[in-house]
Amino acid sequence: MHRVKVRVVEDALDANNTIARANRADFDAHGVTVINLMSSPGAGKTTLLERALGGLSVRAGVLEGDVQGSLDADRLAHLHIPVVQLNTDGGFGGECHLDANMVRSALPALALDDIDLLVVENVGNLVCPAEFRIGEDVRVMVSSVTEGEDKPLKYPLMFRTCDLVLVNKLDLMPHLEVDLERFLHNLDAVHPDVERMLVSARTGEGIDAWRTWLSELVAARSGAAV
Amino acid sequence: MHRVKVRVVEDALDANNTIARANRADFDAHGVTVINLMSSPGAGKTTLLERALGGLSVRAGVLEGDVQGSLDADRLAHLHIPVVQLNTDGGFGGECHLDANMVRSALPALALDDIDLLVVENVGNLVCPAEFRIGEDVRVMVSSVTEGEDKPLKYPLMFRTCDLVLVNKLDLMPHLEVDLERFLHNLDAVHPDVERMLVSARTGEGIDAWRTWLSELVAARSGAAV
Repeated sequence: MHRVKVRVVEDALDANNTIARANRADFDAHGVTVINLMSSPGAGKTTLLERALGGLSVRAGVLEGDVQGSLDADRLAHLHIPVVQLNTDGGFGGECHLDANMVRSALPALALDDIDLLVVENVGNLVCPAEFRIGEDVRVMVSSVTEGEDKPLKYPLMFRTCDLVLVNKLDLMPHLEVDLERFLHNLDAVHPDVERMLVSARTGEGIDAWRTWLSELVAARSGAAV
Repeated sequence: MHRVKVRVVEDALDANNTIARANRADFDAHGVTVINLMSSPGAGKTTLLERALGGLSVRAGVLEGDVQGSLDADRLAHLHIPVVQLNTDGGFGGECHLDANMVRSALPALALDDIDLLVVENVGNLVCPAEFRIGEDVRVMVSSVTEGEDKPLKYPLMFRTCDLVLVNKLDLMPHLEVDLERFLHNLDAVHPDVERMLVSARTGEGIDAWRTWLSELVAARSGAAV
């Protein structure tokens, strides 16, 4: 049974990569830079987006992935940018990740001509989202300091396949028994020298840097000046 | 393709339930009460176990589920109780949950005659672990207040299928913009009147109640006095 299961999974990943390439071609045709944003539940993805997208100089849109509901999409409504909600609870008990086909199914609802940057907020989960490419340019993950120093070692694929780690909730450090240096050491152990930013969505620390990073990413992809 | 996928998943769940019943029969034959302990990554499962199992009056064992590594099992070593590590990174990029067959594969390593209580610490994830029964008596989940008020609404199956919710990291409440009443309201919306305990693994608040709950659970299952 295990053998059969693995083969099904491999077929699914092949199909996923084919569809991810189709998504990529569509994004390229419209000049849209795409970020796959991932984290544990409650690490602060939506709040960090809210903070950065307000006042961002490029035209952004968001695809919100959730098992159920539209709470995060509703939270972004005040930004007056295109936000599309994608729920994964169709079959089964709810998919724990977005795959390329789910993202593809949402493309008709996205006016790609009207945006330069698409942020896809994945389902909160440190395992499966890392296994499915969706046609993104880069992967950004949020890791909250409240989750402890050991997370890179316990969920290595996620930390290894991302291009930027936002270390969030830095304002809580004085109240935690967490060793930030050890977290960064563990991060380097699974992904040496991966870019990281220490941020606090609550106090605003590091948010300017995160917003600049987004602008520069779009500028670099489009070949234009910032 | 979606149709095929759903059928495969249903078959997998059928097979899972068959094996879960076999696990259950083995646990019953040895008089072992089994808890499936679930949460997001970093919500505090291991620390809450460490606190409760030290000084517990019944004989406990732990099955540690992780994608990779044995960090949590190592943390429990000082309790001098049986601890078995189960890693899910065999095929694929790592399974995001434990299923009945994985638990079954660990049973030979567990001396069921020597324990009254087995706690299975699942992979940190609020989606898929809720979909797979492993032969447990009860499901306990840990929800950290740092994750925000909205988690029951976003991950309803997990909150709906558990028997006890440990609301952890209560010591951080003064430093968070989180409304505890709203969290509890959302919890009742998806699982009315589910038992809940407000705890802090760090300060020890609520740990006695959690330890008593464990003892009484074992006593009730075995028909003995506490």
